[in-house]
Amino acid sequence: MSRAFPPGLSEQQFERALAAFAAVIGSEAVLSTDSDRHAYRDIYDHRPQDRHLPGAGLAPASVEEVQAIVRIASEHRVPLWPISRGKNMGYGGSAPRLAGTVVLDLSRMNRILDIDVKHGHVLLEPGVTFFDLFAVLQENDIPLWLSVPSNSLGSVVGNALDRGNGYTPYGDHASKVCGMELVMPDATLLRTGMGALPDSVTWQLYKYGYGPSWDQVFMQSNYGIVTKMGLWLMPEPESTLTLKMQCPNEEDIGWIIDAVGPLRRRNIIQHNPNIGNFMQFAMTMTSRSDWYDGAGAVPAEVEAAIMQKLGLGWWHVNLTLYGYDEVNEFHAGLVRKAFAEHTSQPFEVHKWHRGQPLDIESGAGVPMTLPLNMVNWAGGRGGHLEFSPVLPQDGARCLRQLQRSRALFRQYGVDYYGSYTVGERHVNKINMIVFNKDDADQTQRCHQLFHDLVAEGAADGYGEYRTHLSYMDTVAATYSFNDHALLRLNEQFKDLVDPKGIIAPGKQGIWPKTLRERKT
Amino acid sequence: MSRAFPPGLSEQQFERALAAFAAVIGSEAVLSTDSDRHAYRDIYDHRPQDRHLPGAGLAPASVEEVQAIVRIASEHRVPLWPISRGKNMGYGGSAPRLAGTVVLDLSRMNRILDIDVKHGHVLLEPGVTFFDLFAVLQENDIPLWLSVPSNSLGSVVGNALDRGNGYTPYGDHASKVCGMELVMPDATLLRTGMGALPDSVTWQLYKYGYGPSWDQVFMQSNYGIVTKMGLWLMPEPESTLTLKMQCPNEEDIGWIIDAVGPLRRRNIIQHNPNIGNFMQFAMTMTSRSDWYDGAGAVPAEVEAAIMQKLGLGWWHVNLTLYGYDEVNEFHAGLVRKAFAEHTSQPFEVHKWHRGQPLDIESGAGVPMTLPLNMVNWAGGRGGHLEFSPVLPQDGARCLRQLQRSRALFRQYGVDYYGSYTVGERHVNKINMIVFNKDDADQTQRCHQLFHDLVAEGAADGYGEYRTHLSYMDTVAATYSFNDHALLRLNEQFKDLVDPKGIIAPGKQGIWPKTLRERKT
Repeated sequence: MSRAFPPGLSEQQFERALAAFAAVIGSEAVLSTDSDRHAYRDIYDHRPQDRHLPGAGLAPASVEEVQAIVRIASEHRVPLWPISRGKNMGYGGSAPRLAGTVVLDLSRMNRILDIDVKHGHVLLEPGVTFFDLFAVLQENDIPLWLSVPSNSLGSVVGNALDRGNGYTPYGDHASKVCGMELVMPDATLLRTGMGALPDSVTWQLYKYGYGPSWDQVFMQSNYGIVTKMGLWLMPEPESTLTLKMQCPNEEDIGWIIDAVGPLRRRNIIQHNPNIGNFMQFAMTMTSRSDWYDGAGAVPAEVEAAIMQKLGLGWWHVNLTLYGYDEVNEFHAGLVRKAFAEHTSQPFEVHKWHRGQPLDIESGAGVPMTLPLNMVNWAGGRGGHLEFSPVLPQDGARCLRQLQRSRALFRQYGVDYYGSYTVGERHVNKINMIVFNKDDADQTQRCHQLFHDLVAEGAADGYGEYRTHLSYMDTVAATYSFNDHALLRLNEQFKDLVDPKGIIAPGKQGIWPKTLRERKT
Repeated sequence: MSRAFPPGLSEQQFERALAAFAAVIGSEAVLSTDSDRHAYRDIYDHRPQDRHLPGAGLAPASVEEVQAIVRIASEHRVPLWPISRGKNMGYGGSAPRLAGTVVLDLSRMNRILDIDVKHGHVLLEPGVTFFDLFAVLQENDIPLWLSVPSNSLGSVVGNALDRGNGYTPYGDHASKVCGMELVMPDATLLRTGMGALPDSVTWQLYKYGYGPSWDQVFMQSNYGIVTKMGLWLMPEPESTLTLKMQCPNEEDIGWIIDAVGPLRRRNIIQHNPNIGNFMQFAMTMTSRSDWYDGAGAVPAEVEAAIMQKLGLGWWHVNLTLYGYDEVNEFHAGLVRKAFAEHTSQPFEVHKWHRGQPLDIESGAGVPMTLPLNMVNWAGGRGGHLEFSPVLPQDGARCLRQLQRSRALFRQYGVDYYGSYTVGERHVNKINMIVFNKDDADQTQRCHQLFHDLVAEGAADGYGEYRTHLSYMDTVAATYSFNDHALLRLNEQFKDLVDPKGIIAPGKQGIWPKTLRERKT
């Protein structure tokens, strides 16, 4: 296996740095065999020239060890790529932006430091997974609900830091963060918000603190290493009521967005519902070869066959109401009324009551891995990329964007899987690009498609909320108002707090001055 | 009237700077007469040694003029104190932290740049007042509701930037901000969030943007001058139902907090209700001399007489439910049940339906000025200070903090006016300190009281969310975790973006390095 070293370091110098790390955290916590490095690669990206090949891994067990690592990294000029569990699937997994960067794997720091049942919050280390936290809540009959992303293998902290989405009323994970502790690039320990007050009793209760509030600057960025994070959890409701519908036509998405948007903004629908096309199911439950073996995107008649056979419409709508039976029933009436203006189809109804087991139908955040199956769709070893622009809650605009995106998918011969997560004011469109990573031509086409989607979105005034390692610079370049004033601020702040550029160079397009020429 | 000049500037140098400003924005927009300076003082602070005496005022009419002012200020080393309308009552009004600072009065920039009725947001210049915006919404029958602070004379933008509170479900104003435009200290124009994407159509729809999200760093701070701000407005509900109760005993606050907290966290009560003591009404509607002319705080028997005569309990509870009749009635039942565990008193009920005029009873954000009457309580020319710690939603803790605060109020002979605003996880306690600013001894006692309250709060783990100019350093000093790591970060960032220290030196305890010795 080829190796990559930190910029400017010889193999010998790098080995000396690894020895220095080992002296502090133990040699068993320095992971530098070929298989270690392989384990930290982006498992969905096997392009021959691996631009994101990790230099090694380090697995500290404590905040003090993180501080020691940062000091040594600074001395030896070794860039670090902090991961919580490294399950940033579709966006690069655990791999660093810059080849040779050392993955700082925080998964051993996996304590749940506090569960405040009364106030409804937790204080977590980065290694705590959704499964871990769910198990503890369940085993202790704690009436607090998680919100989980559709692939829930990862870290609660890591997902929030990358602004991941879940689908309960607490699904905007970043907005439920309340207070952080970080190790800064100079090894200073920082506590944000009310945590800056010694012996504070409101660190996880009030987000802003006094003066500037920094939590949101430490998300999707590379200014510090989060070692503790407060997160609000949702009090378990008395009951939920879920309304499901399959809508038959591609263009139905226009009226669906226009029907759901007002209900969402009025908080009748309190969560961010996900509205996906039939491919979301088809890719998860079946393989492309079950349906079609031609080249290019599956044609319309095959799409029709998939829908018919699986009993799906073009779109499935899944809206959950949270609260009390009486209230949910009343709100369900409002939802039905809004939909009745466009369709005579009835909703399928699911109900859950407190005391019943939490399952997917409950509307609770139940960790799951099933959706990852989709990567097997295209055959061979699977991979996926997610193109994720932010759109207005406007049916006509969403439909136009869909049609343009689909045309690009067809042009590059890629099957179309799209979904919309409807936020409080915006729509988060996920265009899932699934490929066989052993098929070099297909992989290449998917990457070209991605570039075109970014450019087309920007031309329409749409930007991504998050992106894969390989496109971090591409997307950052679209946020160019006033000669990239915001990116320049991001870079200035980077150089201020991390002058040696040791934390996650290139993350979200933010490069330290020492490596700014690496921008692509 | 005595004058103050920017640090290090002679009168002559300062006059040259004013002439340079006048050359760009016109001499009529340079406000440097005695009465101009007087108008920008803290109207509630007439201590003989005015630590916050403005040097002059500047009133630009456009973003370009703000940029020009910043360039000249930088050249002449003239610090600027940006205000929107300057109605930061109880926290310093329009006055600067540092005497001699020039007030940058943005009130002429008062355009409502966008009202998106469908998505429910506005884009505002800083000069737009709550009254302005309310009038435009009413005159155009736009079904969007404001949230207003209890004294609503000021700017919508300015209030959000200082993290002011209102009392509708959109009462956490800072959390409803979505996208900013700023003039930075080097005159660069910056747009945050999705606004960094040219021709973005989601600037006011999605808060975070791509990468680090800066909006919350530009609040309660001095890093840039906000020239445009996006704000979400609440879609008008179908109806509201308000439940009111007078609770007779001081110690009732314990169970009230414990009853309201869970309803708030479960979003049954969707807004941040304000629970105030009888003095909130007594000070607004009557004068101290109506009741008592002795020295020291009004004694218990006079308090009892006030409550009896005005028909008040110790605490008044005012909870509004927003939505549809059926839902509000159901939720009212849950509120009644929670209160019935502690009292047999019934609630007084007020209902509002769409189509009825918006009044205070509607639960809408209707701008008002009546609460400002309280400053007349103590006689003479009135003033007030607000001590505002953040507490947990824990009745026992709130009660203990109340008893300790009240003891201090008594010790300094100050009448007690307290209220609690119940947030989603925290309680914002406002201790209103009302004085006769012409009574030097009383004023002095109030300031000593304030110092003691801050120290006592910090010892219990409570910090302020906001404070008066004179206490910005005092409060900042309580956020001292790890040798003031957070304040040091704030200062580092200050020196980065504003090396000459021209924007609001000392705001929230953040001083530029050129003036750091001014810290008190």
